[in-house]
Amino acid sequence: MRFAPTLLAAVLAATLAAQTAPSQAATPTATPTTLSPKSIDAATQLRERALADDTGWKVVESLTTEVGPRMAGSEGDARAVAWAEAKFKALGFDRVWTEPVTFPKWERNSESAAVVGAHSQRLAVTALGGSPAGTVEAEVVRFADLAALQAAPAGSLAGKIAFVDYTMARAKDGGGYGMGSRLRSAGPSAAIRAGAAAFLMRSAGTDSHRNPHTGITRFDDGLTPIPSAALATPDAAQLSRLVALGKPIKVRLALDCGWTGTATSANVIGEMRGRSKPDEVVVIGGHLDSWDLGTGAIDDGAGVAIAMGAGKLIGDMKVRPARTIRVVAFANEEQGLHGGRAYLAKHEADVGKHQIAAESDFGAGRIYAFSSGAPEYAQGAIRQIADVLAPLGIAHTPGEGGPGPDIGPFAGFGLSWAALRQDGTDYFDYHHTPDDTLDKIDPKALAQNVAAYAVFAYLAADAQGDFGSKPGKVTPPHE
Amino acid sequence: MRFAPTLLAAVLAATLAAQTAPSQAATPTATPTTLSPKSIDAATQLRERALADDTGWKVVESLTTEVGPRMAGSEGDARAVAWAEAKFKALGFDRVWTEPVTFPKWERNSESAAVVGAHSQRLAVTALGGSPAGTVEAEVVRFADLAALQAAPAGSLAGKIAFVDYTMARAKDGGGYGMGSRLRSAGPSAAIRAGAAAFLMRSAGTDSHRNPHTGITRFDDGLTPIPSAALATPDAAQLSRLVALGKPIKVRLALDCGWTGTATSANVIGEMRGRSKPDEVVVIGGHLDSWDLGTGAIDDGAGVAIAMGAGKLIGDMKVRPARTIRVVAFANEEQGLHGGRAYLAKHEADVGKHQIAAESDFGAGRIYAFSSGAPEYAQGAIRQIADVLAPLGIAHTPGEGGPGPDIGPFAGFGLSWAALRQDGTDYFDYHHTPDDTLDKIDPKALAQNVAAYAVFAYLAADAQGDFGSKPGKVTPPHE
Repeated sequence: MRFAPTLLAAVLAATLAAQTAPSQAATPTATPTTLSPKSIDAATQLRERALADDTGWKVVESLTTEVGPRMAGSEGDARAVAWAEAKFKALGFDRVWTEPVTFPKWERNSESAAVVGAHSQRLAVTALGGSPAGTVEAEVVRFADLAALQAAPAGSLAGKIAFVDYTMARAKDGGGYGMGSRLRSAGPSAAIRAGAAAFLMRSAGTDSHRNPHTGITRFDDGLTPIPSAALATPDAAQLSRLVALGKPIKVRLALDCGWTGTATSANVIGEMRGRSKPDEVVVIGGHLDSWDLGTGAIDDGAGVAIAMGAGKLIGDMKVRPARTIRVVAFANEEQGLHGGRAYLAKHEADVGKHQIAAESDFGAGRIYAFSSGAPEYAQGAIRQIADVLAPLGIAHTPGEGGPGPDIGPFAGFGLSWAALRQDGTDYFDYHHTPDDTLDKIDPKALAQNVAAYAVFAYLAADAQGDFGSKPGKVTPPHE
Repeated sequence: MRFAPTLLAAVLAATLAAQTAPSQAATPTATPTTLSPKSIDAATQLRERALADDTGWKVVESLTTEVGPRMAGSEGDARAVAWAEAKFKALGFDRVWTEPVTFPKWERNSESAAVVGAHSQRLAVTALGGSPAGTVEAEVVRFADLAALQAAPAGSLAGKIAFVDYTMARAKDGGGYGMGSRLRSAGPSAAIRAGAAAFLMRSAGTDSHRNPHTGITRFDDGLTPIPSAALATPDAAQLSRLVALGKPIKVRLALDCGWTGTATSANVIGEMRGRSKPDEVVVIGGHLDSWDLGTGAIDDGAGVAIAMGAGKLIGDMKVRPARTIRVVAFANEEQGLHGGRAYLAKHEADVGKHQIAAESDFGAGRIYAFSSGAPEYAQGAIRQIADVLAPLGIAHTPGEGGPGPDIGPFAGFGLSWAALRQDGTDYFDYHHTPDDTLDKIDPKALAQNVAAYAVFAYLAADAQGDFGSKPGKVTPPHE
């Protein structure tokens, strides 16, 4: 998960408004979308079967163990693509294929930081994705937040290391990541404008361990990139205490990393064919790539496993839903939604054949809220789905949420979406760190996720009527 | 903290028995030791003042921030000695000095481990203290515990890496560390006897983070040491899952570390002079050295800070206790109790001038139990001290506990001891890892520790009568 949920929510509030307002009356499909009692009954049984099933767990265990880290373009990424194809087939998907995704490749070779001088000691650090290589030994200037750094006059940090010690807040909906990820994105450029030789930030995270949080950054056009990295929480606190001693504190930051040409990976797709309208699809998915530090369990092995597990359970039903269930394991979400954008580019013309889409990319915590940006005429069916989800502890929250990151670009071009929002209270303890490993997933919570996705996908695929996907730019997703 | 509390308890049960049995009747000091109402009253006020005081916190903040890691013999260790001298003086100790401690020096330069082959991925690893350097790429053979490894026939692990995936239990008294540390000490030699080329173990810890736990190991005489290291908890679980796939799993372990001659550090000692019997001393302390991975906050900056803080508060009293308070910051506990043994060697002849001793080396959790190995004639005074400690949530637990590790050697030669046992439920989440940092200490819990040590030290120093320290070998501390 790269983007902040709150930003996505903002994007989608706009999408929702655009979809529900004038177009609604004009569309010929304005007949209310509904679900039959038979569909509801089948979905209820599916839900209970999913809760007792461990397919999701086995999938994420297999991915994180046998493949492990799989940063976009790496050898592990290539193994992950092969793994996903094989896993779809082993799970009995009717049709399995890949769609190539090409992107710039970034590599991390080594990274270190240390206080030098009278208080000499190592600091736990990781390069931000997109950072150039470089070794800088310079005095640290501390800022409390991004705004303070942005207010630094041009040239005022010449030859210095800008250090922003902003602490993001813990929140169930991950709201604190809004500012955390904004600092990671915009901080380096602000540091360059003030003349800094390097950029350091407290990790965008909520933990207290010496495992720094990586994540993509970018540099504004016309600026010369500088080495940019995140300190682990205890190390950021340590550096602030050292600076507070009142004497100049020098840090040596050494990063060997950078962009090294292009790489091609793939969106890996598996379908469980619908019984009567097989050309129409409900898309569920997660992203297959991970950062390199951990094994990508919560980000986003869980999402891939939830979608694969739900698809498998639907495929096993005696009577399949009317439409096809399409599970997408997206390529390279982390470094710029490359898989989602490639999917949009390839399938934009077929938006009308997309019933609706939902992506899981916020860990493996229990889903607590369900909503959809579908037009008003489909909200009755959304309510019916919500009723089947309710026993899972999931509330219907109309007007909230947004699509997952890889659905986002397509949602801006007419794809209808649903949101199954997860409890992310602990998500940013592990997100983008070495600690993103299998043991951080609760198998029962994962099964609840699989059950919810299975119910949603089955009912959306079996609905009488559509959820409003149609050609036309809605509102451009922004970051 | 190097040794297992349970082992120390066993040592001390023997010590207690030896001190309380026949010698009791024979000693001329068998008059019951007591505390005057005036002493009790002064200690009660001292306790309340200590609870509201932040000296302990400031001391551990200063040590962990300004010095940071301080592995025995390192540059950081030398800075720590200078820091301790300066801090004692700044806190107003009457007399401050150092006593040299010489020991073999072990250095860690780099360490890495990775699964190679079809499931290629890095593993979070740290060399055990005392491990030789070496690079081994070999198949892993997994054992569930030390006994299983010890049962492996000679030669059966030729050219293999022995991997013991034993999980130590969480316990308030740290009891699980008994087997955890035994595996770390005895595992490498057992692996060598079975022919192994390297030794890997699940860290002796209770956390779920990718911060492996180091700690000293040793090799039995006559064996050729092999590279020996600990995996972080998630990495040990990962390696076990990979082995369970049923195909040979190869790991490449590369350690650059080893013994590099001798080094000299120092026990740093500060005294607050007693008002009427200044030549008699109550010793309290902790150890100044730490492992190199963290900043040694809970192990054992806290212990140093608790003892310094208690000494400072007693020194500030309008009426000092009768005897002198001696605070000792011991050198190199981690690699073999070198500071404690040096203190014994230098002061053995003066055992009779030692009233009693207590060491804090189990983190910064609240003290919940108090006891002493003093002879029966002094147990009345121990009960009186316990009564003043009771409002701090501390129970009197006669017959339990033991001296801290650095007191241990001297306790075997007649030094009387008291135990102020801390809640170590979380201790092994951080112990010997990069995560042993200041933020893991609760300032209020630390103040409770300072208050308890202040009360104990003051009352022991002001007692009418002694606590049984006297020349004579009691029982040799074992490991």
